Amino acid sequence: MTSVHVIKIGGNVIDRADVLQHVLDDVAKIDEPFILVHGGGALATQLNTQLGIPTTMVDGRRITDADTLRTVTMVYAGLINKSIVASLQARACNAVGLCGADANIVRATKRGTAERDYGFVGDVVAVNIEALQALLRQVRCVVIAPITHDGNGQLLNTNADTMAAEIAAAMSAVARVRLTYVFDHPGVMLSMDDPASVIEELHVAHIEELATSGIITKGMLPKIHNAVRAATAGVDVRICGPSDIHTTAGTRIRIDHA
Amino acid sequence: MTSVHVIKIGGNVIDRADVLQHVLDDVAKIDEPFILVHGGGALATQLNTQLGIPTTMVDGRRITDADTLRTVTMVYAGLINKSIVASLQARACNAVGLCGADANIVRATKRGTAERDYGFVGDVVAVNIEALQALLRQVRCVVIAPITHDGNGQLLNTNADTMAAEIAAAMSAVARVRLTYVFDHPGVMLSMDDPASVIEELHVAHIEELATSGIITKGMLPKIHNAVRAATAGVDVRICGPSDIHTTAGTRIRIDHA
Repeated sequence: MTSVHVIKIGGNVIDRADVLQHVLDDVAKIDEPFILVHGGGALATQLNTQLGIPTTMVDGRRITDADTLRTVTMVYAGLINKSIVASLQARACNAVGLCGADANIVRATKRGTAERDYGFVGDVVAVNIEALQALLRQVRCVVIAPITHDGNGQLLNTNADTMAAEIAAAMSAVARVRLTYVFDHPGVMLSMDDPASVIEELHVAHIEELATSGIITKGMLPKIHNAVRAATAGVDVRICGPSDIHTTAGTRIRIDHA
Repeated sequence: MTSVHVIKIGGNVIDRADVLQHVLDDVAKIDEPFILVHGGGALATQLNTQLGIPTTMVDGRRITDADTLRTVTMVYAGLINKSIVASLQARACNAVGLCGADANIVRATKRGTAERDYGFVGDVVAVNIEALQALLRQVRCVVIAPITHDGNGQLLNTNADTMAAEIAAAMSAVARVRLTYVFDHPGVMLSMDDPASVIEELHVAHIEELATSGIITKGMLPKIHNAVRAATAGVDVRICGPSDIHTTAGTRIRIDHA
């Protein structure tokens, strides 16, 4: 294949059924092979609450104990992944839904630092481009849940933004890759209250300054770091709203020094 | 491919972690392409109970309301399917875990009769042999959760024994197919208390008689009907215990009139 489009849809898109269906209408119309990475949204937290499992977040990342890993595996790789696949099939878009363990597409290693234990959280180690290419010759879309494995039988919870960036970066070795982060804002904005303040081109050289001045919020920063990671590997990265998949709206990441 | 082995592992095998790991040791050693269909076991019922969703069984089949469909999709297609795939990867057995919606491998239609509504239960309509063949050229094993779809976006709950039989029967059009039902007994037995009473060859002509006399129990009958369905299509069908995957032990189904 010559080009691949990697699309990441955020949890806040998945949480709104009408928005999700609209996004799936749009992605089903993509006329090149594509990889759809989805987040989890509020469903996993809801299920954890119903089951009496406490949810702890640190720096926007969920701490994954054994019970939470079960929950996210069920919700992400089961309910959300299969619902999206069935919805794409209904739109005549042949799709296959996987997690990182399937065909060994994304292998990870359990994160551990001296200061903090994130539990069963996985940092991506390897993306199996051959397997993804073979799958994309068979179906139009591979839908990927942000669950990985360590190769020794352990499933791990991996940030969906990171997963999308790592997959896009790896695939850029064999294809022209676009990565589109679809979330609930029209892009990276100078003022959160003003949709017209979207930064059309975000230059890597300006990110630190924008972060220091608080324009790029703490919650937004990991997404942008992931975007930069992919852009640095040669991926064309855009961050946009749920109606912008087939437009050029939103924020493009620029790695040149302007 | 010239041959395919379809293995169905029952819920009662999945419920016992040590037995399941032993079975996975055995299946990982299978030296031909294979399809592993798994049931759900007690986990879905447990989760339904924890969530306050009542579970109703009729004739050994679960009545699937919308909440139960969510539960089984999470447990079967999420937790169990991905745990099995990760365990196979750890055994150097490359596997991909799917449900019927993925690559449209098993399409079903919602069951409905005048007398009884089974809810979101799917009867298999079509098995996509081309997709399964393509996947089995890419990985050694396709792990299949008993969740199907109707092609219109609706996921459906399908009996795992039936799913295995329909897949085996369909694949027999393009390959020599063996179907092995692995459950918690050593085979179909004349006396439930006596493992030595396993019927080595069960002839279709004798089934009705054995059912009438109570030797084949009510719970066992649907499994045998599924076995006969596959055997009639030319599949070599065997029902055996969890240690018998690489033996010839258990009950073979014979469609000749002996």
